[in-house]
Amino acid sequence: MTRPRRRGCCTIIHLREDNARFILLAVVMVIYMAAGATVFMFLERDNEVKEKEDYNETLTAFKTKYPQINDSDLDALLALHSKAEAAGYVGNRRDRWDWPGSFYFVGTVVSTIGFGMTTPRTIGGKVVLIFYGFFGCAGAILFFNLFLERIITFLAYILRAIHIRDMKRKGLISETKNNKGRRPSQTSDDDQLDAWKPSVYWVMLILLLGASIVALCASAVYQPVEEWTYFEAIYFCFVTFATIGFGDYVVSQRESYANVDLYRFANFIFIVIGCCCIYSLFNVTSIVIKQVLNWMLRKLNCRCRVQRPNPGRRNAITPGHLTKGGKAPTVTVTDVDGDSDSEYRRNSGEMISMKDFLQANKISLAMMQKELYETSQRGHSHKREGGLQGGVGPMAILNRKLGQEDHFDSGV
Amino acid sequence: MTRPRRRGCCTIIHLREDNARFILLAVVMVIYMAAGATVFMFLERDNEVKEKEDYNETLTAFKTKYPQINDSDLDALLALHSKAEAAGYVGNRRDRWDWPGSFYFVGTVVSTIGFGMTTPRTIGGKVVLIFYGFFGCAGAILFFNLFLERIITFLAYILRAIHIRDMKRKGLISETKNNKGRRPSQTSDDDQLDAWKPSVYWVMLILLLGASIVALCASAVYQPVEEWTYFEAIYFCFVTFATIGFGDYVVSQRESYANVDLYRFANFIFIVIGCCCIYSLFNVTSIVIKQVLNWMLRKLNCRCRVQRPNPGRRNAITPGHLTKGGKAPTVTVTDVDGDSDSEYRRNSGEMISMKDFLQANKISLAMMQKELYETSQRGHSHKREGGLQGGVGPMAILNRKLGQEDHFDSGV
Repeated sequence: MTRPRRRGCCTIIHLREDNARFILLAVVMVIYMAAGATVFMFLERDNEVKEKEDYNETLTAFKTKYPQINDSDLDALLALHSKAEAAGYVGNRRDRWDWPGSFYFVGTVVSTIGFGMTTPRTIGGKVVLIFYGFFGCAGAILFFNLFLERIITFLAYILRAIHIRDMKRKGLISETKNNKGRRPSQTSDDDQLDAWKPSVYWVMLILLLGASIVALCASAVYQPVEEWTYFEAIYFCFVTFATIGFGDYVVSQRESYANVDLYRFANFIFIVIGCCCIYSLFNVTSIVIKQVLNWMLRKLNCRCRVQRPNPGRRNAITPGHLTKGGKAPTVTVTDVDGDSDSEYRRNSGEMISMKDFLQANKISLAMMQKELYETSQRGHSHKREGGLQGGVGPMAILNRKLGQEDHFDSGV
Repeated sequence: MTRPRRRGCCTIIHLREDNARFILLAVVMVIYMAAGATVFMFLERDNEVKEKEDYNETLTAFKTKYPQINDSDLDALLALHSKAEAAGYVGNRRDRWDWPGSFYFVGTVVSTIGFGMTTPRTIGGKVVLIFYGFFGCAGAILFFNLFLERIITFLAYILRAIHIRDMKRKGLISETKNNKGRRPSQTSDDDQLDAWKPSVYWVMLILLLGASIVALCASAVYQPVEEWTYFEAIYFCFVTFATIGFGDYVVSQRESYANVDLYRFANFIFIVIGCCCIYSLFNVTSIVIKQVLNWMLRKLNCRCRVQRPNPGRRNAITPGHLTKGGKAPTVTVTDVDGDSDSEYRRNSGEMISMKDFLQANKISLAMMQKELYETSQRGHSHKREGGLQGGVGPMAILNRKLGQEDHFDSGV
């Protein structure tokens, strides 16, 4: 309770490790993007050249066939036509700015899909868009986050219930577990259950299945109605649900559909549920990516933690460590063992628990809380530490850090 | 420590309240979208009609001027032309699928901007996009989340330092505050400082300023280079940084620029920083929206909390309460007062603290942790409660809930 310097060290080191992870992720992302750029270049380059030639040949053929056409007239028409096409004035397209069209447009704004099939073309529309979009996007982010919270809570509940049932079936815990009369010997059962957490991989798998089912069902509707291939419909679903929204395929653009209101409603529901599912899936996946980053940081010998028996040592992870790649002299196995986070990961093996998810996801809120708690506790260094016996794992770190407020309130 | 039933009640009620908030947000979002649809319809409808007429007139005039042109020839050319225009084959446009173009495309995918100026047109490209985009988007979400965490930590640190300086200037805390020799009387100073948290409004304001500065600087670059008006450049910045990405304005599309490499690099940096800032801003704004939702829930008389002196009562917030709108008999002022969350809000008045931010933002992680903690602690009801003296506010709730693990580890 009164070891003054260790917590201060941890604060600095955690901060530096967070920075290292952030920089590592930036580097990984750039490499990933560079690799992706190369792959897509090889996949698409030939097609681009061919399509470009086709277009130029057709244009030349047209001009040859009708030599009397003034070039500037044709160019003006073509330029106007492509603008009109982009704005949806050509062919049997629906009106863009009737009420359903406007609602559809607003939906692509707040969800940040932004197909671009409808865009504000007046100055007034653009000005309103900026202010409207600001609150709309913030609201939609809150909506996605609340959905994520609800679905994770639900899945954790289900997974835990399944686990308890399995345990009971195997006779590993007593059937009287949930009864009110509790024997002292049940404490070990409870401990066993407490140690179990739903794996983030299971949650990821379930969300992946859920998102896939939504996409497959939606595609089955879109394929006949929009006269796309089934694969095109799936591609559209991914691009839309991920809120990328290229706009190369957009549903509900024709002037008339059978059961147009029903189709629009189904479309709305598909997009809302699809976006929510994929958003949740991406966030769960990002936790797995964060674990990979942690593993990479360890491999890069950047686990420059304070050795527990030597609380005065301050070792910082800096980008320099990363680029040098050399083994920092202060990094030892005991350092890593001394860190409860690593110990937790060792203990749980491959399984990333919901605790990891909760701690790491939604931007390491635990870290933020810790940092802010520490900021708010600055000057209280003599009250730091003393919670190390609180358990293992990220949530235990949180418990330790936050539990001290109790000590402070009652114990000082 | 041994009041068994109250915590169980709270659990159920918190869950129900979360559901009520989620449904309320969904309703609010639909109303907001409906209102937005109406506004945009009025703003854009006339322009649409006028542009459509202009296009049809020009087309008719062209056909009148050149009656010898076969209609199907012209239609085929126009259709091909608009496709070619959308694919960027027309005019002095850059190649879409050279390496820089491919990198740009990949950037719009992982950031979910999705301008759509470049889209995969081969089956292979589309298949790869789905798998590539899956991990790319998840990685980018992690990147944005880590950025948010870093910037919030940084801002909280700065704001707290400013606050302490102000306090010192006013003589409210002693200058020896940070010295090692601490007098017992300083405990009250510490309490005072602990009670202070940076306001989420300040953080929001700073992020808004930051995002605005990035957008204004970027626009100042885009305006002359892309030959847009300054307002068009700002509109582009908002649409891009919010990852909406309509594609009506896209930078770096022409074949040649002065200092093309520098421009592309600056463009990349602008978009990365802009997206990060706006993402953070949206998330902070979503907390304010959540506070508004909480206020609305209170106004709707849905604060169906358990009266503290009567731990056995279970009052659930359900959608039914919302739609009925009637005052539930169990809702009293003492109910609200008994709830530390409300009390906290009362105490801090208008100010939503960083604790609120941390608790509410990034999907009520605190709630998730609580839920999961409770799930993991199911069957431990006799060890619940007893942390009510731990403080006031959402983080205090977290402290209470999580602090109990310490009690469990050491006290049972």
